[in-house]
Amino acid sequence: MRRVGYPAEIVDLISHLKRLPGIGPKSAERIAIWLLRAKGEFAFEFSGAIRSAKEQVAFCRFCGFFASGQDGCDFCNDPDRNTECICVVEQPTDMLPIERTGAFRGHYHSLGGKISPLDNIGPDELRIDSLVQRIKNGEVNEIILAVGSDVEGEATASFLADHLKRIDLGRPLAITRIAQGMPAGGGLESADELTLFRALDGRRSL
Amino acid sequence: MRRVGYPAEIVDLISHLKRLPGIGPKSAERIAIWLLRAKGEFAFEFSGAIRSAKEQVAFCRFCGFFASGQDGCDFCNDPDRNTECICVVEQPTDMLPIERTGAFRGHYHSLGGKISPLDNIGPDELRIDSLVQRIKNGEVNEIILAVGSDVEGEATASFLADHLKRIDLGRPLAITRIAQGMPAGGGLESADELTLFRALDGRRSL
Repeated sequence: MRRVGYPAEIVDLISHLKRLPGIGPKSAERIAIWLLRAKGEFAFEFSGAIRSAKEQVAFCRFCGFFASGQDGCDFCNDPDRNTECICVVEQPTDMLPIERTGAFRGHYHSLGGKISPLDNIGPDELRIDSLVQRIKNGEVNEIILAVGSDVEGEATASFLADHLKRIDLGRPLAITRIAQGMPAGGGLESADELTLFRALDGRRSL
Repeated sequence: MRRVGYPAEIVDLISHLKRLPGIGPKSAERIAIWLLRAKGEFAFEFSGAIRSAKEQVAFCRFCGFFASGQDGCDFCNDPDRNTECICVVEQPTDMLPIERTGAFRGHYHSLGGKISPLDNIGPDELRIDSLVQRIKNGEVNEIILAVGSDVEGEATASFLADHLKRIDLGRPLAITRIAQGMPAGGGLESADELTLFRALDGRRSL
């Protein structure tokens, strides 16, 4: 018996959609059919939006954030930002949550990952040289390590702290790490042991 | 304070992704960033797959299923299918679940919707004329109404049954409706009243 199904173009579209994160086979089929039936030029516009994002957007060669074209990103081009402090994050996407707090107005630097021996990612795979270069060139006097609090984040933070302390700058450079402790709104009963341990360890006098 | 965020191309891509069914703002952002970082030419291929599906795929002019090009769909072009029976469904996507049961080897006809006064969809908005034409031209002797068992499906089925009975064919035409009753694996305790009522009403002698 011949197996009848969607035309090849739909099958191909579904197989691409299935590869997107968080999209299962059912959703992929639903989205594909929805796209074919979407009003007006939506499907063409969507196709164009993917193409143009992929063509135009590159990583900023200074901080590693997303930039349109070769002129650096919105962070690096903003003359109002404090050039004395660089906040180091794992991924470019980590910058926006920090930005949204409104508590930081300095510059950012994305490492492009974290030290993770299991995934074969060592210090050489991270954007550490360009960070050192920015520290040497500029008037930076504080580096905030805003990496994750998982094992790899810890390893990355401690490696970076050691590495940056060894730079001979001729001026003081403070290296800090964002606090670890109780998340906002979290009750003590729901906190795990390690979080509580770190919250106690990092207690501040009032 | 200037609001810093993603470059315009990424914002545009996210706003398109957010319009897809089942994709919220968080998923849209995640998928957009994933697409930018996807290995090789995936993003371009995905963009091309959308464009080519939208360009190549049309509704089959006979049954209303998806077809690549103007030559009709795989169902209508299959010479091995039984031409005496047409299974009427609401949407082209309803054909594949029926096909997967393996219990039906006739032809299909999609109405393109169901009678729904609240959405301003009356019989004139449905592909009923082309169904009547197929019945008149062919050697069809049974029409299976495989529409939904919701209120609109019921209305559509009863309208169609009346309408098709009035065609003067000069040969008998059986009009049937797929059974309503207990779903497979469902216990009596979880069935609603209407399902049980219909299951009793449609009981078969053993």
